[in-house]
Amino acid sequence: MRMVDLIEKKRDGYELTKVEIEFLINGFTKGDIPDYQMSAFAMALFFRGMTKEERVYLTKAIVQSGDQIDLSGIVGIKVDKHSTGGVGDTTTLVLAPLVASVGVPVAKMSGRGLGHTGGTIDKLESIKGFHVEISNEEFTRLVNQNKVAVIGQSGNLTPADKKLYALRDVTATVNSISLIASSIMSKKIAAGADAIVLDVKTGSGAFMKNLEDAKELAQSMVEIGNGVGRKTKAIISDMSQPLGFAVGNALEVKEAIDTLKGQGPEDLQELCLTLGSHMVVLAKKAADFNQAREMLKESIQSGQALQTFKTFLAAQGGDASVVDDPAKLPTASYMVEVPAKTSGYVAEITAETIGTAAMMLGAGRATKESVIDLAVGVVLHKKVGDHVEAGESLVTIHSNKENVQEVIEKIYSAYKVTDEKVDAPTLIYTEIQ
Amino acid sequence: MRMVDLIEKKRDGYELTKVEIEFLINGFTKGDIPDYQMSAFAMALFFRGMTKEERVYLTKAIVQSGDQIDLSGIVGIKVDKHSTGGVGDTTTLVLAPLVASVGVPVAKMSGRGLGHTGGTIDKLESIKGFHVEISNEEFTRLVNQNKVAVIGQSGNLTPADKKLYALRDVTATVNSISLIASSIMSKKIAAGADAIVLDVKTGSGAFMKNLEDAKELAQSMVEIGNGVGRKTKAIISDMSQPLGFAVGNALEVKEAIDTLKGQGPEDLQELCLTLGSHMVVLAKKAADFNQAREMLKESIQSGQALQTFKTFLAAQGGDASVVDDPAKLPTASYMVEVPAKTSGYVAEITAETIGTAAMMLGAGRATKESVIDLAVGVVLHKKVGDHVEAGESLVTIHSNKENVQEVIEKIYSAYKVTDEKVDAPTLIYTEIQ
Repeated sequence: MRMVDLIEKKRDGYELTKVEIEFLINGFTKGDIPDYQMSAFAMALFFRGMTKEERVYLTKAIVQSGDQIDLSGIVGIKVDKHSTGGVGDTTTLVLAPLVASVGVPVAKMSGRGLGHTGGTIDKLESIKGFHVEISNEEFTRLVNQNKVAVIGQSGNLTPADKKLYALRDVTATVNSISLIASSIMSKKIAAGADAIVLDVKTGSGAFMKNLEDAKELAQSMVEIGNGVGRKTKAIISDMSQPLGFAVGNALEVKEAIDTLKGQGPEDLQELCLTLGSHMVVLAKKAADFNQAREMLKESIQSGQALQTFKTFLAAQGGDASVVDDPAKLPTASYMVEVPAKTSGYVAEITAETIGTAAMMLGAGRATKESVIDLAVGVVLHKKVGDHVEAGESLVTIHSNKENVQEVIEKIYSAYKVTDEKVDAPTLIYTEIQ
Repeated sequence: MRMVDLIEKKRDGYELTKVEIEFLINGFTKGDIPDYQMSAFAMALFFRGMTKEERVYLTKAIVQSGDQIDLSGIVGIKVDKHSTGGVGDTTTLVLAPLVASVGVPVAKMSGRGLGHTGGTIDKLESIKGFHVEISNEEFTRLVNQNKVAVIGQSGNLTPADKKLYALRDVTATVNSISLIASSIMSKKIAAGADAIVLDVKTGSGAFMKNLEDAKELAQSMVEIGNGVGRKTKAIISDMSQPLGFAVGNALEVKEAIDTLKGQGPEDLQELCLTLGSHMVVLAKKAADFNQAREMLKESIQSGQALQTFKTFLAAQGGDASVVDDPAKLPTASYMVEVPAKTSGYVAEITAETIGTAAMMLGAGRATKESVIDLAVGVVLHKKVGDHVEAGESLVTIHSNKENVQEVIEKIYSAYKVTDEKVDAPTLIYTEIQ
């Protein structure tokens, strides 16, 4: 088999076989297939796409290129959740204890990552003493005992994806639904999930700017998941403005605690209940979505969800008293209000610009070497559709630098206020299974 | 400027600027732009194509990537001819002395190349003593004196094209009209031609299998040539069967001599008169095509064309007596006839299969290291449309190996004989300027 023939086959719109896709991924991972052939293939694929079957073979081959996490020691159906990313997405911090509190095992492997804020681990490290350096045995034991634990990424998962992504990034071949879908799904599958709930974001702050693209990506990922024998469901949710109010590490932990108490932002709570209900159903802890939703609401109301969060934190060395006294979280030296210049209705909050503002304060990583300031970030007070009076605060900036003039300007550039009444955007567009 | 942005621009169907194309070609030639980006770009270009302006900029940038031959010491308008390749194409051997004989300066830089037979230089080396190792000064002097000389390739012409072609070859991006056109034209332009006549072949034995593709390629090359200020004309000619009768090195020299005497195969003579007439007009040695054609016919009839060939051979050390006594050319030890199995009309002669038969006898190079047998090859006696009786010879094999059973079978597989009368194919489809 020759790589050049496979490039030509894809270029001309033919379907590759399982054996051909395995040859391609194995050869590329080992270095037998050079980057210049793989990048030409990726570009041909950008134009021609892949069939459902090809995507399943591609994902399987990527999974098999490296280690696979064995979660068989954990009792029950392990359901993972994945979000395609956005600004102020605190769902993981809420969902992990929330679904664990109704008996769904949450064995979360998480990373730090680049972005406007840190990853789940960075956020949790706002809590004094909390650490994820635990052995695989300890991880399994904790999940079986408390239904939830978080471990740092280890092992050589999906090396083919890492190598391919690095190449796509410099050859303008990132934007391929087939490649995005197989990249995301291969990581989830290698991490050992039995079932997967996907939160595909759409809107100006999301990778998928329009609903049709988001649906196509969601459909593709659901087909891959089910195609490899992992039950998969997706919802499409709004990212035309930041989710919730907080964008920052400790600020999001505080917001997650509020949400677990039933006092969080409406959109964040609603999204967590929806995603969580799908997780509970896939884990077979409820017969249907409505029953699952009732269970989760009840767990919040009874304090069970919050208690599970405390137990989880303490089990990994964290100071659980933070849950009752969020003032123990890192706090910034300066709090600066950003007042509305005119009265009216909030018509737009560009999520990416808000993310950039948080980044400017030091909340996120631009490179792997960047040091995150866990205390800083922004808290929105007004969301799209809200009425605001001139002088009323739109946003509070939490900063460790005194001069935040540039951040203030950034935030003003994100907000658009109009005279006409504006409807709040739809939060959840559709679900795909 | 970042290469990844240029890839994306082409991928999304936008036109690149002159500066962007120069950045691309200069960077790639120097090695600043890695192969994996160039191959992704080439694949994007395969799908999106290039505008007329982009093709001109690309060709210029490739020309400027290396040396350019200075033919300014040669008096008159230097017209070069290029054929896109086929089987049994003896036109260069005929055209060079033919148009020189009416005063068109022919300063031919030629190579050896890979293929079913050797290149022009290999063929000419069938003539005892003939050599192309002459200095640039001697080359200029000879063209001014005799109107024709041939020199071997020297200098570092179009290194960007060489590097790009090697990459296209292994990434399934050869088949792009834009890239083929700029590759061919950049070499002709760097070689110093003032004007160019193109013979674009179409049919089963050509790179462009169908007429529409051939027209598109011809149109593109003519636009590039004229766009860089070199007058360019193209004709589309048939390569559904081999051109002329002979396929082999010395055999083609013999056929060229016959044609210069007015005794060559009809199709070869007609094609040479057509291409030659366009060359004469571009060199401003005749007012129009018909006048040029009359001049060339007259030169053949008067023996002037043949005399020019003799002078040319002798000037480069060749034994010119070969022209009057072609038996002095290398001859093969065995001549084997391939008789027709049935009576009927020749409906098809697959050019590539005939080429492969010549190759099997040793007439061509598979790799740069292959040694060519100048004496061997095949001579066709029947062309498409001819009537043949069972037992009559279709082809004579000239071989230095006694056992030619496989070659015979190859030839049978190329010929298709039917009961119904068949028309000879059109030789020249159209002209493009």
